[in-house]
Amino acid sequence: MNRRDLLKLSSMAVAAAAAPVLGETSAEGGPEVARWDALEIPLRGTAAGNPFIDVSLTATFRMKNRALTVEGFYDGDGVYKVRFMPDEEGVWTWTTKSNDKALDGKTGTFTCVAPQAGNRGPVSVRDDYHFGYADGTPYVECGTTCYAWAFQAEKTQRQTVATLKQAPFNKLRMCLFPKWYQYNRNEPPMYPFPRTGEVNDYSHFNPAYFQHLDKLIVELREIGVEADLILFHPYDKWGYQQMPPEVDARYLRYVIARFSAYRNLWWSLANEYDLLKYKTNTDWDSYVRIVEEYDAFDHLRSIHYSRHQYEYWRGWCTHAGVQSSQLEKAAEWRADWRKPVIYDECQYEGNIASRWGNINADEMTRRFWLAAVQGTYCGHGETYVSPDDILWWSHGGVLHGKSPEKIAFLRKLLEETIAVGPGPIGFSSMGDNPMGAKRANDAVVFFYFDAHQPALQTLALPEGKTYTAEYVDTLALTRTPLPGEYSGKAEVRLPGTPWGSVWFRAKGVA
Amino acid sequence: MNRRDLLKLSSMAVAAAAAPVLGETSAEGGPEVARWDALEIPLRGTAAGNPFIDVSLTATFRMKNRALTVEGFYDGDGVYKVRFMPDEEGVWTWTTKSNDKALDGKTGTFTCVAPQAGNRGPVSVRDDYHFGYADGTPYVECGTTCYAWAFQAEKTQRQTVATLKQAPFNKLRMCLFPKWYQYNRNEPPMYPFPRTGEVNDYSHFNPAYFQHLDKLIVELREIGVEADLILFHPYDKWGYQQMPPEVDARYLRYVIARFSAYRNLWWSLANEYDLLKYKTNTDWDSYVRIVEEYDAFDHLRSIHYSRHQYEYWRGWCTHAGVQSSQLEKAAEWRADWRKPVIYDECQYEGNIASRWGNINADEMTRRFWLAAVQGTYCGHGETYVSPDDILWWSHGGVLHGKSPEKIAFLRKLLEETIAVGPGPIGFSSMGDNPMGAKRANDAVVFFYFDAHQPALQTLALPEGKTYTAEYVDTLALTRTPLPGEYSGKAEVRLPGTPWGSVWFRAKGVA
Repeated sequence: MNRRDLLKLSSMAVAAAAAPVLGETSAEGGPEVARWDALEIPLRGTAAGNPFIDVSLTATFRMKNRALTVEGFYDGDGVYKVRFMPDEEGVWTWTTKSNDKALDGKTGTFTCVAPQAGNRGPVSVRDDYHFGYADGTPYVECGTTCYAWAFQAEKTQRQTVATLKQAPFNKLRMCLFPKWYQYNRNEPPMYPFPRTGEVNDYSHFNPAYFQHLDKLIVELREIGVEADLILFHPYDKWGYQQMPPEVDARYLRYVIARFSAYRNLWWSLANEYDLLKYKTNTDWDSYVRIVEEYDAFDHLRSIHYSRHQYEYWRGWCTHAGVQSSQLEKAAEWRADWRKPVIYDECQYEGNIASRWGNINADEMTRRFWLAAVQGTYCGHGETYVSPDDILWWSHGGVLHGKSPEKIAFLRKLLEETIAVGPGPIGFSSMGDNPMGAKRANDAVVFFYFDAHQPALQTLALPEGKTYTAEYVDTLALTRTPLPGEYSGKAEVRLPGTPWGSVWFRAKGVA
Repeated sequence: MNRRDLLKLSSMAVAAAAAPVLGETSAEGGPEVARWDALEIPLRGTAAGNPFIDVSLTATFRMKNRALTVEGFYDGDGVYKVRFMPDEEGVWTWTTKSNDKALDGKTGTFTCVAPQAGNRGPVSVRDDYHFGYADGTPYVECGTTCYAWAFQAEKTQRQTVATLKQAPFNKLRMCLFPKWYQYNRNEPPMYPFPRTGEVNDYSHFNPAYFQHLDKLIVELREIGVEADLILFHPYDKWGYQQMPPEVDARYLRYVIARFSAYRNLWWSLANEYDLLKYKTNTDWDSYVRIVEEYDAFDHLRSIHYSRHQYEYWRGWCTHAGVQSSQLEKAAEWRADWRKPVIYDECQYEGNIASRWGNINADEMTRRFWLAAVQGTYCGHGETYVSPDDILWWSHGGVLHGKSPEKIAFLRKLLEETIAVGPGPIGFSSMGDNPMGAKRANDAVVFFYFDAHQPALQTLALPEGKTYTAEYVDTLALTRTPLPGEYSGKAEVRLPGTPWGSVWFRAKGVA
């Protein structure tokens, strides 16, 4: 190993700080890897020719009768890597297969042990319309967006992580390609493919570009934030929206091989897929097939649109990631598509000139509530004009708005009531009544009044239970116990002010 | 004439204070009647048998080659009346026709003279989507609702008129039948038909009941308020929603004969027609035909629904009178139906338990703005819980809410800009831009930002004109001139707060 290789490996060690690096071993049990951690097997192979295209590498991981095969990837300088996320405790073995003899037939073993604190595994769909971590903990989705944070100054990236650590958000939408758009007219520090002038060399990847993304995804993982990785987008001046089909396919397989072992990964096939004018529906179907075939860990998958709503009933979508400010459609869409609905983009809190980027904090908060009371989810973003031209929605950095505090308040209520009454939130269409939702076991029922301000309200509660009640001002962020107990068609006295919500908790439950 | 008759006639004189009473005359020119005033011809005929059914009476009014025929009606005690609203200045003659010899072949003449101040004639549709008075003055519709004000205590009725005199509203939706509903559980002081116990005598009308309505409609006329008379409604315990078909028809013809000479009259076939479960679509079609055939003055006509939206594209509807809180549909519906759209019921400002009756003042105001910027109209109503159980929406009385002041502010803006740039308001679908509307001659253009709060906004102005601009806070009710002049794709600096609107006025116009 020459000096350059050493440097490279040491930078990789930083990049994948939480990824145990495994070597070949036949020792019984081998090294220990925590359940749902990403392990990495570096292998030295040929650097001759074009390893990105010429060399095939897969590894099959076995546990009892199970066998999961992942692709390895070339990381430059003769180093190949295989990554894997074991999902079951016990002894696993692995074997490689390659057309490069130096990489072929390597084997090893490791023991998957209990996850460390804070490692709850990947998120998947739970109870049809909701999400949960693999360890059983419910995941109350609460996302935000920093499309191009990966391509900003290092200082801004550090700020973004620090901000997210304090913020109520547990999912981040981010682009895999650099972004060219209003407020985003800079060249990125690196390119995903070698680039000379205006010409991309699509036959090679730039490992450093992807190593940087490795690092950011792992950083998000360590602070409990899911990385909703956007694979294609139309805000492009470099050509990435119109690569040849075989490059698209190679790119997807490379990305899957690199990133899919990260438990906090979600796939978003595209942002505004319908604005990618060079791609056909057949193209999209082919991308879907690649993600389904090569992602051994079955991460969450969706796609985001601009004008033409995607057919979210399709089987490959694990959930809908809509762009819409029609929050009143939530219950209908949820029922139609029979899967979780996330309003990933419902417009952003801010004051820029574009209508999608200038709703006020209370309206943003209101949309989160409208989504929640219909058993769906909403997404945050922020676009305040700033002297430094750093806008959270794209660059990350710091938050300036007033909605995150109010969204945190809602998230706390939702998570708190899971403790009282676990189970999904079901939407109740109450006709002339305010919108209401409840936990499946009827232990928690809540109503949201929006711009309505009843002074007295009849609220239909599930039969057979007695409830205590709390009045919540969703904008003033106050919680006030209401006197007495409630059951059946309950008459509830309210302050007669708008933006209220009432939360009922069944007595004797938890 | 006995004492009872004298009393009766004197009360009628009060009832129709502004209606010139004409007798038979052949004097050249005869008495003078102001254009668009209701004249009344009382005739003495038989009181024997059942004049309501047995006696037919029509009068034909002639002016040059025109001939308009109206039905007369029996007003009790042997008195029959013919009412007419002349719409053209000059000499008119009239002749009656009846199966009662005492009423047949009566003739007279009168001279229609210029209208007095404040008499602008009836309202009709203007510029496809808007309204105007017959004298050419634009009518910026701004309605409210007091369904059952005609059946409240005299003191409340006086309050209602006094309130309306100060309020920004120029149309009142009111029921012709008494109302039985929440907050409305009283017997009316009178019934439209003689009633014994629970039994209605549908073969007779109760003239006093209708004389009282005469009086109220005229009172509204004198303060410049259009009376949007609701002919049927389902909030009924007395049987009026399920009368035999021939009674429905007789009732409609009676009402038309009595009221159609009032220039401030609009017909609303029903409130929540689809909740009138005893009536079929064929029934409704037959009512439409009666109104069209017997109303010689072609008053505005519409119908109001609950769940099943009426087919407002139908020819007989002069405008749509919708019940909906989907203000975002306004432009679409307007374009579909190609006629004026009024959100007669978009929910009410208040705090009662019913969702339709507890939106806050700012939300009510917002709905007026959303309607206005789409070139449509919105309606007000108020339902605040009150110790006296008098709620404006049904009883009238006084207003408690905060939206009327804000609605007045909008109405003033709309009317003011008619002076600057007369012509209809056209809606501009601006894609990603805020909703905007403009006068047809491009003299006035305005945008409404709703919950959006741009600090800087590009607003596309019609080509070839230069504008000055004013920033309007639609809730704080402030108007602030913006510096400079604007044209083309104008960059406008704004306060970055929500609920704003910008009004552009073309330089050199008015």
